[in-house]
Amino acid sequence: LEQIDPDVPSPGIVIPILNWLGTTQMFWDSDLGKSIETIAYSLYRKPNAALEARADAIIDMYEKLQAPDGYLNSFFQRIKPEWQWTNLRDFHELYCAGHMIEGAVAYYQATGKRKFLDVMCRMADHCVKKFGRGPGQVRGYCGHEEIELALVKLARVTGRQDYMDLAKFFVDERGQTPNFFVEEARAHGRDPKGVQKSTLEYNQSHLPVREQAKVVGHAVRAMYLYAAMADLATEYNDDSLTAALETLWADLTRKQMYITGGIGPAAANEGFTDHYDLPNDSAYAETCASVGLVFWASRMLGRGPDRLYADILEQALYNGAITGLSLDGKTFFYDNPLESSGKHHRWTWHPCPCCPPNIARLVASLGSYIYQVADDEIAVHLFAESEARVELANGARFTLRQETDYPWSGDISIAIDPEVPARFAVSLRVPAWAREARLMVNGQPVDPGAVGAEGYIRIEREWTKGDSLAMTLPLEPRLLRAHPAVRQDAGRVAIMRGPLVYCLEGADNGAGLNSVLLRHGLGAAQTATIPDLRGAIAIDLPVLRESGESWGEALYAEKAPETEPGQARLVPYHLWDNRAPGEMLVWLRQAAE
Amino acid sequence: LEQIDPDVPSPGIVIPILNWLGTTQMFWDSDLGKSIETIAYSLYRKPNAALEARADAIIDMYEKLQAPDGYLNSFFQRIKPEWQWTNLRDFHELYCAGHMIEGAVAYYQATGKRKFLDVMCRMADHCVKKFGRGPGQVRGYCGHEEIELALVKLARVTGRQDYMDLAKFFVDERGQTPNFFVEEARAHGRDPKGVQKSTLEYNQSHLPVREQAKVVGHAVRAMYLYAAMADLATEYNDDSLTAALETLWADLTRKQMYITGGIGPAAANEGFTDHYDLPNDSAYAETCASVGLVFWASRMLGRGPDRLYADILEQALYNGAITGLSLDGKTFFYDNPLESSGKHHRWTWHPCPCCPPNIARLVASLGSYIYQVADDEIAVHLFAESEARVELANGARFTLRQETDYPWSGDISIAIDPEVPARFAVSLRVPAWAREARLMVNGQPVDPGAVGAEGYIRIEREWTKGDSLAMTLPLEPRLLRAHPAVRQDAGRVAIMRGPLVYCLEGADNGAGLNSVLLRHGLGAAQTATIPDLRGAIAIDLPVLRESGESWGEALYAEKAPETEPGQARLVPYHLWDNRAPGEMLVWLRQAAE
Repeated sequence: LEQIDPDVPSPGIVIPILNWLGTTQMFWDSDLGKSIETIAYSLYRKPNAALEARADAIIDMYEKLQAPDGYLNSFFQRIKPEWQWTNLRDFHELYCAGHMIEGAVAYYQATGKRKFLDVMCRMADHCVKKFGRGPGQVRGYCGHEEIELALVKLARVTGRQDYMDLAKFFVDERGQTPNFFVEEARAHGRDPKGVQKSTLEYNQSHLPVREQAKVVGHAVRAMYLYAAMADLATEYNDDSLTAALETLWADLTRKQMYITGGIGPAAANEGFTDHYDLPNDSAYAETCASVGLVFWASRMLGRGPDRLYADILEQALYNGAITGLSLDGKTFFYDNPLESSGKHHRWTWHPCPCCPPNIARLVASLGSYIYQVADDEIAVHLFAESEARVELANGARFTLRQETDYPWSGDISIAIDPEVPARFAVSLRVPAWAREARLMVNGQPVDPGAVGAEGYIRIEREWTKGDSLAMTLPLEPRLLRAHPAVRQDAGRVAIMRGPLVYCLEGADNGAGLNSVLLRHGLGAAQTATIPDLRGAIAIDLPVLRESGESWGEALYAEKAPETEPGQARLVPYHLWDNRAPGEMLVWLRQAAE
Repeated sequence: LEQIDPDVPSPGIVIPILNWLGTTQMFWDSDLGKSIETIAYSLYRKPNAALEARADAIIDMYEKLQAPDGYLNSFFQRIKPEWQWTNLRDFHELYCAGHMIEGAVAYYQATGKRKFLDVMCRMADHCVKKFGRGPGQVRGYCGHEEIELALVKLARVTGRQDYMDLAKFFVDERGQTPNFFVEEARAHGRDPKGVQKSTLEYNQSHLPVREQAKVVGHAVRAMYLYAAMADLATEYNDDSLTAALETLWADLTRKQMYITGGIGPAAANEGFTDHYDLPNDSAYAETCASVGLVFWASRMLGRGPDRLYADILEQALYNGAITGLSLDGKTFFYDNPLESSGKHHRWTWHPCPCCPPNIARLVASLGSYIYQVADDEIAVHLFAESEARVELANGARFTLRQETDYPWSGDISIAIDPEVPARFAVSLRVPAWAREARLMVNGQPVDPGAVGAEGYIRIEREWTKGDSLAMTLPLEPRLLRAHPAVRQDAGRVAIMRGPLVYCLEGADNGAGLNSVLLRHGLGAAQTATIPDLRGAIAIDLPVLRESGESWGEALYAEKAPETEPGQARLVPYHLWDNRAPGEMLVWLRQAAE
């Protein structure tokens, strides 16, 4: 906070300059932005005067720090003013502004206080002047996308078209020729190729966005860009953007996504490599990247319910994102491998603290991902104990209350209470994996054939107080295999139950999880609650285990290992590493029998 | 060479100082030492005046550079004299001396010229004064073992017991308490834990050598240490050293060695990790480390023939070491993975050029690994076209000539031509994998039960001119499995033929090698010569291939991939990446049938 407060001396550079000539200290503002955003969501649900006062104090500092021309960034004002706007590619200035804007919008929505929003509008005004195609303006964009989706939020809450247009400008300019980052580097006497990881693919500026067909580079950057593209496609009804997004979506979910919804296998670029390259034990699959996938998927629903997006949203949320957080909420995974020899554990802190506030703001705002409204319709994308108070554009006002133990149970009760009887539609997602879902409206079964092409059952009627929906999703465990081109999963199977990926853990099964072979498919699988994981559901299965003892001392031999029958227990992947440390394995071997 | 020549100005630091406060420039002398050693072996076999003149010129420079007190190291004389003997742990001073001594010994043996040998004796004399347990002496040793085995060689060629004793001192002192490296760091004001990778395990100084039971740390360092220990165990008849070596040998070959004889799976420490941790695609398995294993194995034979060591020597030589070199001899592997997605290729050069001269000196001196003599016996450890001129301590003088196409063929003819009839024994190794080896002496079959406990057939008799041995080793391909604790090989098989590990390569089998499933074991395997790999033997097999096309677009699905029958070709692992670039795989899947 010393970095922000104009009343105390500048702390100078606390974190060393690295070989890309920057420091993670440059993005401190972004973490405060995310934190204020999280505080806002939390205040919205439950007032907390002390927390609010703390946020107000930080906002006061930022207001005081802001330059007369609207510029605001504590690092580039207090530590290195001479570096302002000199390196859009690496220095994260617009990225920080974006997270501050998201924080300001959320704080305004939660508290009604405009101060932070006004501060960030002045910064946005500064950017509107600075960036554009007009004379004297910079035709540039940020190396780490984020400002784009933030400006959309700001435009929506303020009604300011120029903010929306600036977001569109940043997206449209990206990857145009001549490449801005190459030109910028030359203009400042830097080697355009001289910086670590600084391929143009790394920040998705290698091609104009509408020509991009493969998901590349840093995973979080890619997700934030696509999220903004999806918002703009909706706002401008831009079919060329939508077409590019559909191509990128198919590329990601058909060729580059872990079964957990984890994305970006490589630590080297925190991002993507080749199609079908999904190593399990070295998977990077950063928590933030799955959070970003949730953001993107949610925005792909902006044009209407479609389980092509909502199914993946749920898969990434329950497996790729939530796994980042320990059950006690105190420790965090940054990378999320699908296999561990027992040495991978959650951190209490990290030198680049991006993931904790990111998963926090996602969890705190979960409500906005469950439901979505149109003029005369509410869509239920996710199933979770919740209550929504809704007013549709067509005038219908009602409360929708979900009661469910999902994802442990597949029974979901929904009570709909309009103040006065009202006509509107409720669209319920039927996940693609739920092949025999059943729905009853006020006790009357609905034809299962009512599932539409996009995977939703749409019930349009006049709703009156006391109306209820009862949906049952079958949660039998499923055996999944990966595309034969995924060499790391060759010959192996993964087990899912509902939206949850399961894994073997050392805590239940001892060491040597790769000696475990599944038998008889899943016919003999049984479920049980796990007392030390808050009543989560485990899957128990008969297995064979290869025996190391009977094998002997040789490392290599011309014989097959002997096997012994036994039982194995699978637990939900997102709950792993909450008990005794040990091995973990998602992709399992199968017995030949 | 500017660094050595005292007649030109010092070039200064050409290679930057890294975060361990050193630079690879510190070991340039060692590369020259290895190069002179290689030149020596080559001159021994075939004179080359130009090459010899070049070596002589370098030796002249070193003679001129040597300090009056015998000290010799071009970096610490010409570039950083103030750093002399200040950091035995990291600065490789004794290591460089060791390689120069090895070069000097080999050059003396090949050419009879004493100059370099005398120079290095003066350096060794300097070390004899400097290091020891006497007053004013340093009780230290080198962070990178090498001087120990070099001093043994120097002692053997000069008959100087003080050199042998210094080697023993270095080995005996290693890992004693208080730890020398900890004390040295403190004495120079450095943090004993402050240097990258500088655990005591990294350089095997964590325990006295006789108490070490697990092979740890940097693989090449470990091999050089154990090689010296084996020499000293022989020289001093030291059973406590032998016992430690047997424990370490079992640890390495039963828990930490790739089937290729590659060792040291991790790039991070260029060395060892946990027992049974043998990742295939990220295997480091440095070429130099397998060369070091050959050195160690060869010295374990110092107490007599034993295939426990000679089999591994052969396995590491043909698969772990030779693989480093391309067929045209121009490019080099540093790391030797057992699986590649197609991006791993040999280098033409490398910033740390240790492997090329190391593999070169091994190849150039191969003859000394094939045969070994005792007072009245010659052991044939390896099978290769070769001719040895031998004089035994019992007075027998003879020529032994091997004619064979091994390892492509299992037929080995050995002609023994004594000048006059003489009594001595010929011991022939029968590899453990060769279960039905046949041997004939002058056309008469030898009882197959004649294989001794150590795996050699010993033929003791009076040999006369024209005597011959004919051995036939069965080379049927073998299917091997790894210990069930090796998670990376779980459920997979590797194929060997004789001493050679085989692999699938993209050049023969296209992409997607993890979609290939072996059928029917090896019953239907056939061999064929490969014209574009100098007549090497390939193994052709019926397989099933999982089909990506019939699978469809989904990345994950509840179905098994369809398979199609086909043929696959396996080639010797050491020959991979000599044709069109592509995937490579050693550990193969098997069909369930």
